[in-house]
Amino acid sequence: MAKVLTRVELNGVVNDVWVEVPENEPAAWPKQAELAVLGKPLPRVDGPDKVSGRAKYTHDVNLSHMLWMKFFRSPYPHARITSLDTSRAEALPGVKRVYTYENTPDISWYANRSKLFDTTLRFVGDEVAAVVAVDEHIAADALPLIDVEYEEMPYVLDAETALSPDAPAIHEGGPQDAPGARNLQGGRPSLYTRGDVEKGFAEADFVIEHTFRSPCQVHACLETHCSVAAWQGDKLTVWDSTQAVHPVRESLAQILNIPIANIRVICLYSGGGFGSKLWINKYTVLAALAARDLGRPVKVTLDREEDALAMGNRPANVMTIRAGCKRDGTLTALTLKNIGSVGAYNAGAGVGTPLREVYRCPNVSTEESNVYINADVARPHRAPGHVQGTWGLEQVLDILAEKCGLDPLDFRLRNYSDTDQVRNLPYSTKGLREAYEKGAEKFGWRDRTARQALSRGPKKRGFGLATQIWGGAGGPPGYAVVNLYSDGTAAVFSGGQDIGSATRTSMLQVAAEELGLPADKLSIVMGDTQGTPYGFVSGGSRTTPSQAPAVRMAAAEVKGQLLELAGKQMNLPAQRLSTREGYVFDTQNPSTRKPIAEVTKELQFGFGTGDRVQNMLIGKGWRGPNPADVSVNSWGAQFAEVEVDIETGEIRVLRIVAAHEAGRLVNPLTASSQIEGGVIQGLGFALFEERVLNNASGRMVNANLHDYKIPTMKDIPEIESVLIDLPDARANSVGVKGLGEPPIIPTPGAIANAVADALGVRVFETPMTPQRVLEALEKGLVLRAQPEEGRRA
Amino acid sequence: MAKVLTRVELNGVVNDVWVEVPENEPAAWPKQAELAVLGKPLPRVDGPDKVSGRAKYTHDVNLSHMLWMKFFRSPYPHARITSLDTSRAEALPGVKRVYTYENTPDISWYANRSKLFDTTLRFVGDEVAAVVAVDEHIAADALPLIDVEYEEMPYVLDAETALSPDAPAIHEGGPQDAPGARNLQGGRPSLYTRGDVEKGFAEADFVIEHTFRSPCQVHACLETHCSVAAWQGDKLTVWDSTQAVHPVRESLAQILNIPIANIRVICLYSGGGFGSKLWINKYTVLAALAARDLGRPVKVTLDREEDALAMGNRPANVMTIRAGCKRDGTLTALTLKNIGSVGAYNAGAGVGTPLREVYRCPNVSTEESNVYINADVARPHRAPGHVQGTWGLEQVLDILAEKCGLDPLDFRLRNYSDTDQVRNLPYSTKGLREAYEKGAEKFGWRDRTARQALSRGPKKRGFGLATQIWGGAGGPPGYAVVNLYSDGTAAVFSGGQDIGSATRTSMLQVAAEELGLPADKLSIVMGDTQGTPYGFVSGGSRTTPSQAPAVRMAAAEVKGQLLELAGKQMNLPAQRLSTREGYVFDTQNPSTRKPIAEVTKELQFGFGTGDRVQNMLIGKGWRGPNPADVSVNSWGAQFAEVEVDIETGEIRVLRIVAAHEAGRLVNPLTASSQIEGGVIQGLGFALFEERVLNNASGRMVNANLHDYKIPTMKDIPEIESVLIDLPDARANSVGVKGLGEPPIIPTPGAIANAVADALGVRVFETPMTPQRVLEALEKGLVLRAQPEEGRRA
Repeated sequence: MAKVLTRVELNGVVNDVWVEVPENEPAAWPKQAELAVLGKPLPRVDGPDKVSGRAKYTHDVNLSHMLWMKFFRSPYPHARITSLDTSRAEALPGVKRVYTYENTPDISWYANRSKLFDTTLRFVGDEVAAVVAVDEHIAADALPLIDVEYEEMPYVLDAETALSPDAPAIHEGGPQDAPGARNLQGGRPSLYTRGDVEKGFAEADFVIEHTFRSPCQVHACLETHCSVAAWQGDKLTVWDSTQAVHPVRESLAQILNIPIANIRVICLYSGGGFGSKLWINKYTVLAALAARDLGRPVKVTLDREEDALAMGNRPANVMTIRAGCKRDGTLTALTLKNIGSVGAYNAGAGVGTPLREVYRCPNVSTEESNVYINADVARPHRAPGHVQGTWGLEQVLDILAEKCGLDPLDFRLRNYSDTDQVRNLPYSTKGLREAYEKGAEKFGWRDRTARQALSRGPKKRGFGLATQIWGGAGGPPGYAVVNLYSDGTAAVFSGGQDIGSATRTSMLQVAAEELGLPADKLSIVMGDTQGTPYGFVSGGSRTTPSQAPAVRMAAAEVKGQLLELAGKQMNLPAQRLSTREGYVFDTQNPSTRKPIAEVTKELQFGFGTGDRVQNMLIGKGWRGPNPADVSVNSWGAQFAEVEVDIETGEIRVLRIVAAHEAGRLVNPLTASSQIEGGVIQGLGFALFEERVLNNASGRMVNANLHDYKIPTMKDIPEIESVLIDLPDARANSVGVKGLGEPPIIPTPGAIANAVADALGVRVFETPMTPQRVLEALEKGLVLRAQPEEGRRA
Repeated sequence: MAKVLTRVELNGVVNDVWVEVPENEPAAWPKQAELAVLGKPLPRVDGPDKVSGRAKYTHDVNLSHMLWMKFFRSPYPHARITSLDTSRAEALPGVKRVYTYENTPDISWYANRSKLFDTTLRFVGDEVAAVVAVDEHIAADALPLIDVEYEEMPYVLDAETALSPDAPAIHEGGPQDAPGARNLQGGRPSLYTRGDVEKGFAEADFVIEHTFRSPCQVHACLETHCSVAAWQGDKLTVWDSTQAVHPVRESLAQILNIPIANIRVICLYSGGGFGSKLWINKYTVLAALAARDLGRPVKVTLDREEDALAMGNRPANVMTIRAGCKRDGTLTALTLKNIGSVGAYNAGAGVGTPLREVYRCPNVSTEESNVYINADVARPHRAPGHVQGTWGLEQVLDILAEKCGLDPLDFRLRNYSDTDQVRNLPYSTKGLREAYEKGAEKFGWRDRTARQALSRGPKKRGFGLATQIWGGAGGPPGYAVVNLYSDGTAAVFSGGQDIGSATRTSMLQVAAEELGLPADKLSIVMGDTQGTPYGFVSGGSRTTPSQAPAVRMAAAEVKGQLLELAGKQMNLPAQRLSTREGYVFDTQNPSTRKPIAEVTKELQFGFGTGDRVQNMLIGKGWRGPNPADVSVNSWGAQFAEVEVDIETGEIRVLRIVAAHEAGRLVNPLTASSQIEGGVIQGLGFALFEERVLNNASGRMVNANLHDYKIPTMKDIPEIESVLIDLPDARANSVGVKGLGEPPIIPTPGAIANAVADALGVRVFETPMTPQRVLEALEKGLVLRAQPEEGRRA
């Protein structure tokens, strides 16, 4: 049982009461207009530090006597090391040590399929050796002095080829060598079925099938991966650009076989992770090992090329979607066959969730294959699978809508689902209808034909929309501690990580609201295992819904203590008191009040003030389990207006209206920022980003930000956020859901639909480059005219 | 009510049970032979860092772009500034700012009797201005360029003169100008009386009266005072060589009017404080102000001279003690008149506690005057008052013992007190009798006459003893947090400060014992306000008795959670389980056990392991109030053997046996270290240390470690500790009392008595320099022959 402070409004009197609740049913913080801090546009508390350059990132950490580590990486996509000689490198003055498979502990990696240093290399960029030298330049100079001989092996770079029976085997032994399952991770595809798809297609008036191809994207974090490791005796401190200081600490303890208690991991600020910094990396382990061996701190920073070659990516997918609907637009069947390239080691490349979950459809099946190829291993990349899957699905919806002669929005409303069809559960809340309505209104969706007239010459306007689902429930483990000091100010210690999404600011607001203090009376510490309780990775849009309830519970515990103290001072029962805007007040007579800072003065302590027990009020909170009887999700819809030049093939996105619902709106300012960031990254997926591997060498030819294009200021359209504030009382005690990933999900689909609307043809492959647009126009793939898309029945 | 885990032994089965106890009666941790970690000689956990130089002190903190601050200090003992021109100093290239009373916020200091910078200077070393420059040397070069004109004022350097009606007034206005109370702090002496001293003296067979003079000593910390202040936006970080990171943070918040929550104070290691670093100093405030003004970190380190001039001292005292006893040795009356020189501002210079408390005596009065003089302000200095007071009292005891023909030890046993006569309370425990017995046995006290024969030529042997009391109860506020991690290792976060007394080690032992883990599975964080709950100053021997119960309670809470977890895994009720040496075991069948690290494995978390709430077990503990119905004290007796050369006057201390009782013995190794440090400092008081002020200038002539003598390796005798392990069940849940100050207290008295035993004459003034020894011999102050000491009645 958990004790949760719940705000109750009864006959116009607001009161906070402690309620014993089962831990899987935390009491909700009811929606109310009276919130003082929560829901307000508080500028991010670490904004000034960031824009002034005062915020210190891992790249900024430089310690005296620090050594530098640089990696020698495989130039081949598949090879065996036949000889390795580091003597010339070690002889270079300033080089302290060269680490290879020969002198490094036998630490397994990639789910026991490889090691820290392996003798078989399975992708270009795979780690062969690491040089430690007195500075970065000497370390770099030593790399070409490492003499390696290889036995090159046959390789394969795309998933479809890798599945063919004569493809080279990337791993020896195991189920992937079973007939028909060569290089297939786990030996078989993962399958899902509900209803009877054959029956569903038979009932359909229209059936279509299309194949969508999305290539691999890299995360392209502003701050490349890096770590600094320093020992003091048997105590290890690691500065790591990570999304997860606590889990990295746990992993280090396990890998190095030292107590968790002896490790401190720090990442106060990080320049982006997007899923590529969720867990520990080889370079961090090696920096720690080298720092211990050499008795000096060791720093390692990957360069842009290394980041692109070896730090993960969004996998390439080939998705074939078949869909059927009745003439009135009712979906009857949906199937997906997905082939995803996970890279050289185990990873996930599934894309089926949106297809299985977003729209009401009784007959659905998906078959998804994760396929090994000789390239870097996939990692979660902001809304993994959902971006690709939604991009494909939403185009299929539009094609069907057109067949039915329905407006795309009406088609979607026709197939609106009120239950989670995969789990057979009701939704806790679902603000998608409101997102459609408010988004369409803001965008002027119903009047868009008037704007179509703005097309001038070769520049064609188009309008599209797409829908988004994301399982934004978060969950345990998540802890927080809140301290209230004798001057009436408070500090929040959160195990979560602020990965740039303003978590510091929103957690501070949650604590401020609960404590009844103005936000400027609080500070917050995150990103340092010293002084913060455990928090899981900041990823999966879990940070806010996982941490906020823990922060609230910690603040509520402190508030309880504060009210006890105030009750004694004010001669009122604590149960009758509450706090607001810096005051403790009598809920039965709100004009009777006392500043919190006056109440806490009693906590001040000096010599001679006697046996006072308290000085600092301390509260501890944790995140309870998720409810088992509802499905918790974040929802959204985006509307895109584009202009396509049919002569140059250039797509210009003019405007995105992004309407999102993620439970309680904690901060409209930071929520809008989050949405803008997601839209921009979605724009990159749609129009620019693609890892290009050269078939002849297996190498990535655009492992830099000159050739690998991400959106720049000039590419960014007007982005308008529509924020649906819908506290989700069943989700958790703050009513919040995740908003980290949602905004990237519908952007590519909305843009693709807008492009098709502008051109009358579709581009079935991302990025939608001018070249592909022109090819599509040339092929004259006018959808309306394609015979195979007509009714089959 | 507090919930405390109590170890209960019943029919040979040890079990831990949760007991609800009133907070002022914490359940005791019974003494038992079965403790696994507590009471064991664990080497200090930070020892390797300290001896290897890896431990970083405030002096070691250097930040990029850091500025340096240096102080211009008053050269006069009493003066008014008539003009102050900083323009030449400011014009020196590299100087960034000069702070004076003209451009510094109006911050009051010295209990509102002065300011951060005052225009009236009341002692040599008083702060006049502070230069901030790009490096230490330029800052120093700028000091002589500050042009100050003064109006010199009459001054007084000793308390007896300061009390005379024609002495210059150090402060204008106030009660100190009342007739007969010139320069008397508070306008009157503080008085204490019990019984009827006149009657007591009338009943005495012997009455003696002597005046003892002890000069001022400085603390002479190995690490001089220093701070580094750095701002990041509105957040302030201060590295400070302090005994109290949390109180310094509170003071900074108050003085700078910023939230406590925005300040972090760090002092991981400090090179001694001894009471001189208990609270915030002007230089710390100025460093913070300057760092904010100039936008760069500011470092300030005082040099040895500044430390001696302005960072506090043990005040000089003139103590007149009159004592009477019956022929059988029973004390009948004791009076003390003490004149203490507090320096230019309010401080404490009382010495009466030992006289009022150590021995049973029905008729006692003390009259103590704190007197202003034109010199630096006194601060607590290891066992303030007790060192001087005990030194005088213990000599009086020996003189009376000789009159009665009693052995000094028997005389003390005759007057052994079983109750606290000041508070009319029984003692919680009192191990003094055991200290006398075991100390005397170790020393060979009863056989000492045999050793007297070792005197050769001019070198005379002598033997002496002295007793010690110290109110070592500690008390609230004190907090601790203990975390148990998924690998079965734990970390302790304590608000206390390890000021060199091995607090890290002993707190770790307390947590290890409670958790049932080997000590090497724990780490501890102290001395950083980030990540530790509040702790009060580490001073007054309060650290261990204040922090240990908090640490134990926090560990017990974690243990409760661990046993719950283990109970589920082992299918046993948690109440039946306990822990020991890394295992959870069934108390009813101890061979059924499971490693703690196996139990906690369940806490490991990764993606896909579901809705687990816990990852890290967190416990919070606090120190409850002291019991009101007993008096809690630490006790001890020291025995000294000396050799005095009657030709040179040189005293050589050959041996000290120090028998101390401070409740439960946490760690014999670190307890012995603590005792050795105290004895050495006591030796300095007895033989070497004296601040010398020149009457003509008011200046200190030995403000350096060449002229101000502290003991060196060559002066240190053989020190043998006798550790009385007597857990004090009433004191707190760990049974510990303070041992920080006790060992310095009896050393000077024991040495003085040994010197008198060797010479047959007494030296009534410290330090007992060769000069004073020779003078005493010359005056022939043979005590036995003094007529005024004979019976008066």
